[in-house]
Amino acid sequence: MKNQELLSEINSICEKAKIASRKVAALSQFQKNNILKAMADAIEAEKDIILKENNSDIDLALKKGLSLPMIERLKLDEKRINSIANSIRELIKLEDPVGKVLSSIIRPNGLKIEKISVPIGVITIIYESRPNVTVDSASLCLKAGNAVILRGGSEAYKTNMALLHCINRAGLEAGLPEGAIQSAPQNREAVKILLKMNKYIDLVIPRGGENLIKTVVEHSTIPVIKHYKGVCHVYVDKEADLKMAENIIINAKCQRPGVCNAIETLLIHRDIAETFVPIIAEALIKNGVELRGDCEFLKFVPSAIPATEEDWFAEYLNLTLAVRIVPDIQTAIEHINYYGSQHSDCIVSEDQNAASIFLNQVDSAVVYHNASTRFTDGGEFGMGAEIGISTDKLHARGPMGLQELNTYKYIVFGNGQCRK
Amino acid sequence: MKNQELLSEINSICEKAKIASRKVAALSQFQKNNILKAMADAIEAEKDIILKENNSDIDLALKKGLSLPMIERLKLDEKRINSIANSIRELIKLEDPVGKVLSSIIRPNGLKIEKISVPIGVITIIYESRPNVTVDSASLCLKAGNAVILRGGSEAYKTNMALLHCINRAGLEAGLPEGAIQSAPQNREAVKILLKMNKYIDLVIPRGGENLIKTVVEHSTIPVIKHYKGVCHVYVDKEADLKMAENIIINAKCQRPGVCNAIETLLIHRDIAETFVPIIAEALIKNGVELRGDCEFLKFVPSAIPATEEDWFAEYLNLTLAVRIVPDIQTAIEHINYYGSQHSDCIVSEDQNAASIFLNQVDSAVVYHNASTRFTDGGEFGMGAEIGISTDKLHARGPMGLQELNTYKYIVFGNGQCRK
Repeated sequence: MKNQELLSEINSICEKAKIASRKVAALSQFQKNNILKAMADAIEAEKDIILKENNSDIDLALKKGLSLPMIERLKLDEKRINSIANSIRELIKLEDPVGKVLSSIIRPNGLKIEKISVPIGVITIIYESRPNVTVDSASLCLKAGNAVILRGGSEAYKTNMALLHCINRAGLEAGLPEGAIQSAPQNREAVKILLKMNKYIDLVIPRGGENLIKTVVEHSTIPVIKHYKGVCHVYVDKEADLKMAENIIINAKCQRPGVCNAIETLLIHRDIAETFVPIIAEALIKNGVELRGDCEFLKFVPSAIPATEEDWFAEYLNLTLAVRIVPDIQTAIEHINYYGSQHSDCIVSEDQNAASIFLNQVDSAVVYHNASTRFTDGGEFGMGAEIGISTDKLHARGPMGLQELNTYKYIVFGNGQCRK
Repeated sequence: MKNQELLSEINSICEKAKIASRKVAALSQFQKNNILKAMADAIEAEKDIILKENNSDIDLALKKGLSLPMIERLKLDEKRINSIANSIRELIKLEDPVGKVLSSIIRPNGLKIEKISVPIGVITIIYESRPNVTVDSASLCLKAGNAVILRGGSEAYKTNMALLHCINRAGLEAGLPEGAIQSAPQNREAVKILLKMNKYIDLVIPRGGENLIKTVVEHSTIPVIKHYKGVCHVYVDKEADLKMAENIIINAKCQRPGVCNAIETLLIHRDIAETFVPIIAEALIKNGVELRGDCEFLKFVPSAIPATEEDWFAEYLNLTLAVRIVPDIQTAIEHINYYGSQHSDCIVSEDQNAASIFLNQVDSAVVYHNASTRFTDGGEFGMGAEIGISTDKLHARGPMGLQELNTYKYIVFGNGQCRK
């Protein structure tokens, strides 16, 4: 497709989305839930078509030689399809975030100023691989009253299209405004054009690896909320309950190493290194973890690989862990603030004072005292579904649920007030 | 200065700001207020130096042939300097926004999840002309626990530097962390380099005209909250109290036409045009307003200038008003959403149903029923001081005060919880 055609196609998608966004914003909770129910039913009813398209994607992925973990993330089966449909049904149960009075004051001049939650408008989500993100993003944006333009990875193209056709067909029949859920052309140039559509699009959420996020941040003239990598840490303080520390570290590293709230680096206070390092190293190795350490750690665990500067920045997403021995809590905090991704970090300590310093000074979305970083999750936080975990500081930080997919406006009621 | 030198200079400013931001965040309310008091006193004590530098700026501006309104905005006198100092003293009285528990829940597994307000970090403010913005921005950012990098307009360079030296010297003596308030080099290239410093800077706030905002949005890899133009509207519904409408329109247009919350366009329902247009046209003309109208308006007021497409987008910032006769409320709403800047818009109507449609469907930061748009202001909203009016939708919308100069983080307290 020529660039001019692509531009005009994307322009038309964005215009439609903007018009649809006004209509979606005006839907009642009842109407939105009806549409969601129709979508969930349709996904289950059309599972054969979806699985067929998914098989095509997988065949192509195998031919292209994609890695096994990537193919695993791409693959759907009956159980996964049911789980996608059930996620929509769970969403139906959640409270509508739109139209809440967040605050209300009456000024001395009699003006009543209400701050009200309202949908953001048009949201673009750019993501990779997992096809469930397609349906999760579409249904969450709808429930929060937004129109959405989705741009998934090319490796899941046919699956994503099948899912989108399915929920759009069922949704439109149940009252979904046309243009409320759309996809952008599967074309590299298309993303760059899309990212300049700040006239129509109110927010871009990129979910994925370093390159995806970099491209979006560099090209976007639209506000971006990054769902970036999770370089999470556990710091074991000198006053830690060592059994608790072991449990938390094993949970945070091994329970599900491929997710963003798993830890990548362990920091241990020097004063307890001699006692604790042999115990934790053995436990980690027993769980299949490959250890990379600084010089001090290597003295205790000579079999570990020497860690390089890149290791401290690394999001392994597998059973690899970097370990550093630190002389004090300040060094731990500075390490986390410098090398981390401001996602989730934990101190294990019985010393309330040390904990308080850590919780205050670590500049991350979620900071833990004596609990696993794996709890950074919309469900675990009691929000219900989440669109992802924001590693940005503005608007939404940490798990981003329905509430964070809304903004606010002020409505001011007067009886003729003029400013003096 | 060569580019490499400039880059390294800006890098060093940003690094310093990052380090300072951690220290500012840790200051107590008492410490911050002491620093602010010292700054206010110093501005009054050093007013002769500041006025001398301001005179140099004005001499240069006159030589360069800057417009009289621009020179007027640039000019300081004893009264204005006292008012700058007093703004700081007012700020001291406001509540500290940092460290508030915004919500707190205990999960079934015993985890206590607190959402706490925290400073944003390093904020860059890019602005034009008025030198009071220098001190207002610095003091607001400080009170909210942030470090700030300021970049004012070249026409106010000497005045801004004098003010910054003054508040920094007095601030540092009173305990201000070094690097908490800095300025960026006065160089066009410097802004572009600064806008790529997303490693250090958490937020950019551009305050100014179209070109400034465009440059920032195009080049920034840092999140931006735009303080863009105010193309504000009053819509007079067919059920309006016409005397009230007249008062609101005159107030919103004429009381201070050079500010962003003054109206630029008036929309009048066709059904009342014959009665209302002659009245309001006479009142506006009597107040010195130049009228530009659509064909229908021109039939009633033949002396008005025909409005072009550009007029509907225009932020005049002077006594010019565009007027359009609309067939219904939907046309008024669509006009505002299309041509407006999502700042402040008003409906005058006695019909609650019409008002409710307008308030819901107009997609602006502040929507008014029967009150002047001139109330969009931090002080009028009861926030105290404001850094400006956000025309963006994310994080902060409308008046942006101390609370909006904070973000939040989650602090999670456990006793060894691991995820199942």
